[in-house]
Amino acid sequence: MKTVIVIGAQGKMGQAALTGLGKHKVITASRSGEGCDYKVDITNEQSVRQLFEQVGHFDAVVNTVGFCEYANFVEMTEQQWMTTVMSKMMGQINLVRIGQEYIADNGSFTLISGILNVKPIPFAIADATTSGAIDTFVKCVALEMPRGIRVNAINPTVLEEAWEVYGEMMPGFQPVPGTLVGKAFERAVDGFLNGEVLFVDA
Amino acid sequence: MKTVIVIGAQGKMGQAALTGLGKHKVITASRSGEGCDYKVDITNEQSVRQLFEQVGHFDAVVNTVGFCEYANFVEMTEQQWMTTVMSKMMGQINLVRIGQEYIADNGSFTLISGILNVKPIPFAIADATTSGAIDTFVKCVALEMPRGIRVNAINPTVLEEAWEVYGEMMPGFQPVPGTLVGKAFERAVDGFLNGEVLFVDA
Repeated sequence: MKTVIVIGAQGKMGQAALTGLGKHKVITASRSGEGCDYKVDITNEQSVRQLFEQVGHFDAVVNTVGFCEYANFVEMTEQQWMTTVMSKMMGQINLVRIGQEYIADNGSFTLISGILNVKPIPFAIADATTSGAIDTFVKCVALEMPRGIRVNAINPTVLEEAWEVYGEMMPGFQPVPGTLVGKAFERAVDGFLNGEVLFVDA
Repeated sequence: MKTVIVIGAQGKMGQAALTGLGKHKVITASRSGEGCDYKVDITNEQSVRQLFEQVGHFDAVVNTVGFCEYANFVEMTEQQWMTTVMSKMMGQINLVRIGQEYIADNGSFTLISGILNVKPIPFAIADATTSGAIDTFVKCVALEMPRGIRVNAINPTVLEEAWEVYGEMMPGFQPVPGTLVGKAFERAVDGFLNGEVLFVDA
């Protein structure tokens, strides 16, 4: 049994991840902290550091959050780009950068990207670009992590549970059940994969 | 004959690009402005906007610059990450975002990434991650550019002309002549390619 910190545990992706982590001791965190063990804002370095210090021993971090702005490229502002970059991209990179100081030997980080970097749709250029950055980041950073620490990313298509919200902007996409995405999180946490992007698509 | 703005024209990559642009009217720009027609800092939105306003009519933008910090991941600071993100990634995205307001119909943007996102080496995690972001960006943004505007990226290995500087950190890499990379810039500017990453590797 591992101690796994799940960030964004109350969200739809967090709930999907939890379906694959049943055998572990799960510690939950989210921005609001509502219904969770801890409160954390991944865009704030002090908040991230505080989370790891408060938790103490942990073997894995599973992140399921990263805020993205959606707009046509020609209408997307610098501010919208930076909000996305500082959350979905730098927020996740900082989780690994700071977390590697605290995580147990042979621990793992599992980040979240998203299928829109390989299946582009209108309005999603910032989401796609930062997902591409995260997919590249995990492939490269895995080669230099100390103490047997592993880093992977889950790159899922839209969840069945989120289809009502996203379906209209994603014509022709086949949603997958959260439990299938949970399997990918399970493989990342329980296996020996390292530097992999685990696509979950239909 | 097209009017092509080449940013970073005095650098080794800029010189490589110029070897492929001999048939065009080339307007040169760089951060210092030394030996160039214009001065531009791609990390500064006002500077970018001023360049395009001063030039007037142009058909293509070729960017050959993007500053990266190099360090081991566990030692790389937030500041080093952000310097790289704001130049190599957001600087180039902003060139397209702002430039598309000014560029001629059927114009083209050619950005620069770099081989380290597919051939990782120590110290280059920020370079690799932002190159991955740029490669993803051009593939996706090309699908929504207005007025026939094209966007591509050149992803070259190390240049023969830069081997003396980078060779020691890139064991086992085969440098390529700048003229070969110039051909890729030529294909991007003169052809109909769109949303492509043109790898130049040996």
